[in-house]
Amino acid sequence: MKLSGGVEWAVHCCVVLSRAEGPVPATRLAEFHGISRTYLAKHLQQLSRAGLVSSTEGRVGGYALTRPADAITLLDVVQAIDGREPAFRCTEIRQNGPLPASPQACRKACGVARAMHAAEQAWRDSLKAVTVADLAAGVEHDVGPDTFVRVREWLGS
Amino acid sequence: MKLSGGVEWAVHCCVVLSRAEGPVPATRLAEFHGISRTYLAKHLQQLSRAGLVSSTEGRVGGYALTRPADAITLLDVVQAIDGREPAFRCTEIRQNGPLPASPQACRKACGVARAMHAAEQAWRDSLKAVTVADLAAGVEHDVGPDTFVRVREWLGS
Repeated sequence: MKLSGGVEWAVHCCVVLSRAEGPVPATRLAEFHGISRTYLAKHLQQLSRAGLVSSTEGRVGGYALTRPADAITLLDVVQAIDGREPAFRCTEIRQNGPLPASPQACRKACGVARAMHAAEQAWRDSLKAVTVADLAAGVEHDVGPDTFVRVREWLGS
Repeated sequence: MKLSGGVEWAVHCCVVLSRAEGPVPATRLAEFHGISRTYLAKHLQQLSRAGLVSSTEGRVGGYALTRPADAITLLDVVQAIDGREPAFRCTEIRQNGPLPASPQACRKACGVARAMHAAEQAWRDSLKAVTVADLAAGVEHDVGPDTFVRVREWLGS
């Protein structure tokens, strides 16, 4: 299975934004993560289109989360970048060939599709149970309680 | 997320093979599913490399499952075609930029990676709980109890 590489950047950005004191310019976010602004801009636009971040212009402008970090799930961010299309696409193979399944049998989704979609639902449920707030708290736990103090200092510098 | 299109074909083939009376030539499998033999051959090779099917030569040769259908999970088939690589790749963003996480903090996997990998484990666990035998039984339930009788008749014709 393949997931868009931009998911990683977008999640990290949301975590930083969740603890920033105000809007953060794209340039600062890119610098903080050591990547090009152009590359990050694309993903910030996707987050914006999905309604997770908003941007303001001007000297103190930049990007900010549109709602509290505990109301943004990891699934929200993943879907903003990677889209909502199912990974498994049922092309109704059972209707092909010399012994196609009857229209009656096909009123219910194919058992293979049902099993594949159930697995994807399990994936989504797992992502939905984690919020950006959880991830930020996790960073404090793993890296140190003063982590975001230092991040805010750097962002303001 | 993207999943190889061949997964669908491979699963359907395994279901047919689980109820066939003997080895089934690739040509017949392709004909039964209404697709080109060349396209199917690639996926049959993947199933073979993963040890799920074996092929025999000769007049009554063809493909067969290597073990009972209740010992082959949907995960086995998916991984045979799509591979075992995680969808999410952690590139250790936290070590980038002006405030990299310390080596000490990085002894534990990043919380973002942990959450993404946990979601993929949920996906794998869901697929692992379904066997080819389950899927074949599901087909009988959905399409009719004589479904594989007719399939075997056609395969033998």
